[in-house]
Amino acid sequence: MNARAPTSLSEIKIDLATIRAAHARIRPHIHRTPVLSSPALDDTVDARLFFKCENLQRVAAFKARGACNAVLSLSAAEAGQGVVTHSSGNHGAALAWAARSRGIRAWIVMPSNAAQVKQDAVNGFGGTIRFCEPTVAAREAACAAVESETGATLVHPYNDWRVIAGQGTAALELLEDEPELDVIIAPVGGGGLLSGTAIAAKGLRPSIKVYGAEPAGADDAYRSLHEGRIIPQTDPHTIADGLRSSLGDKTFAVLRSTVDQVEIASEEAIVRAMRLLWEKLKMIVEPSSAVPLAMLLERKISVNKLRVGIILSGGNVDLGHLPWQT
Amino acid sequence: MNARAPTSLSEIKIDLATIRAAHARIRPHIHRTPVLSSPALDDTVDARLFFKCENLQRVAAFKARGACNAVLSLSAAEAGQGVVTHSSGNHGAALAWAARSRGIRAWIVMPSNAAQVKQDAVNGFGGTIRFCEPTVAAREAACAAVESETGATLVHPYNDWRVIAGQGTAALELLEDEPELDVIIAPVGGGGLLSGTAIAAKGLRPSIKVYGAEPAGADDAYRSLHEGRIIPQTDPHTIADGLRSSLGDKTFAVLRSTVDQVEIASEEAIVRAMRLLWEKLKMIVEPSSAVPLAMLLERKISVNKLRVGIILSGGNVDLGHLPWQT
Repeated sequence: MNARAPTSLSEIKIDLATIRAAHARIRPHIHRTPVLSSPALDDTVDARLFFKCENLQRVAAFKARGACNAVLSLSAAEAGQGVVTHSSGNHGAALAWAARSRGIRAWIVMPSNAAQVKQDAVNGFGGTIRFCEPTVAAREAACAAVESETGATLVHPYNDWRVIAGQGTAALELLEDEPELDVIIAPVGGGGLLSGTAIAAKGLRPSIKVYGAEPAGADDAYRSLHEGRIIPQTDPHTIADGLRSSLGDKTFAVLRSTVDQVEIASEEAIVRAMRLLWEKLKMIVEPSSAVPLAMLLERKISVNKLRVGIILSGGNVDLGHLPWQT
Repeated sequence: MNARAPTSLSEIKIDLATIRAAHARIRPHIHRTPVLSSPALDDTVDARLFFKCENLQRVAAFKARGACNAVLSLSAAEAGQGVVTHSSGNHGAALAWAARSRGIRAWIVMPSNAAQVKQDAVNGFGGTIRFCEPTVAAREAACAAVESETGATLVHPYNDWRVIAGQGTAALELLEDEPELDVIIAPVGGGGLLSGTAIAAKGLRPSIKVYGAEPAGADDAYRSLHEGRIIPQTDPHTIADGLRSSLGDKTFAVLRSTVDQVEIASEEAIVRAMRLLWEKLKMIVEPSSAVPLAMLLERKISVNKLRVGIILSGGNVDLGHLPWQT
């Protein structure tokens, strides 16, 4: 998966400088999240692990970075008409939060069966929810309707250069704190975090290896890279609810050109890794955050004695239903 | 509880300078733990809260500080004969860890019914467990036997100036990071953390208010201060398993002279506060850590609009049995 050939799908329009500019833009609004380590976890995988705690980020997810960069990148005229997105997860809350920070409106399109806690998060940040049927077509139609009614700007959850640049700022900070990393791993769903991570990390440190970690039950990025074309995720089955999306043309282009490898982890390993992170790091992380460690537990890549950065993507989880309890 | 009259029980032998010296001694061995905030939690109590995350400390508890200071304060001759303590909780693991850091032996006296996870922690750090019957007399006899057999130095879990000075370094760091605090709150069991916190905080910032937070089901410090004499805790009933001990003469002396007030929190509020910390701060904390926030939820002291530091004492909890699950 180290194909360097130019892809015909999408030209990569951002680089390290773009991500640095995004960081300067969003820094007053986001948290500088800590980087934590655990000797017990290091022993488990025979490597030194450095966890970037985006579960401690605003809205408890890295998504705050990309949404904030997109909102702050709008012209005053654009901002005046608000933003719109579709999301049943952290991006919806993040966009509502970012819009409120700038004092503009946000419409969030959600399936009518979205979890109450996700609805509450959007409402809590003053976002306006528009419900739709739980299909891709209905979701896109609902977004388009808001755009034409209101003039709001669409901020896609991941297939958007402003969003990707914002997500890359987590790796920027991680490498500022730990410049000597040999490897960096991010989970991959739609690919926004992994794309931003790869561009930032390879820009700062060309020798670094960048890996994506994906649930076996939603392995579209893994398959897409192997086949050289985007294979949409049709029927995801994974507890990692943040990673059920398909790649977009922009994220696929970055993954092909800049990411060294995407590997998959089993559901059993994801739950085991999540519990290890809770026990050893004392961090509440959501299942998606545990996929990189799960991949290491299953020895999908070799990190023996290396210094490995891992982005813990978020901490939104239902404390009443933990996956290791029956 | 602001009695300034000298107590006949014990002379206070440490001050801010002692705590600064302890910090210089232990700093290479402990973590500089982060201080976190949550706007959602601030709104809940109408104050600005700054949480010192000792759940992220070595052995996942502030106890690492005091144990480390005690071990590093020993002469070479003393150290050569090792250390001994009685503890069924975090102090035992902390002393085993600290002894291993200096390459010396540690004997930990535990009741024969101690939880397996606590035994595993001590064994994991290379400590030697001595079992005893679960009574105060048996525990003290077992410690005395180890002392006379081996020449090991007793490091009491809290009624020891070296331990108290070490525990005070958490408040020292918190006030370095947030110098403008109006209030600082620590949980109180045997009183080691609260004593060190009070001496450090009042030394650095005489105007600060120092409060202790105690479970209603183990309220010996509250009653002892009201009656002006140590009333031992005979039958504690609280989920906050780190706070079931009685005060010692040293900690009672510090609490009487230096702490503004000790207040109690109900079990219901402790569980509610613990869940709030998990949900909003994304931190795994043990029930003892939640008692200060529980006290604020129950409006036992007035902190309206103030800047309040809270020491989250530890993160050792059984993830298979959470108190909000039936």
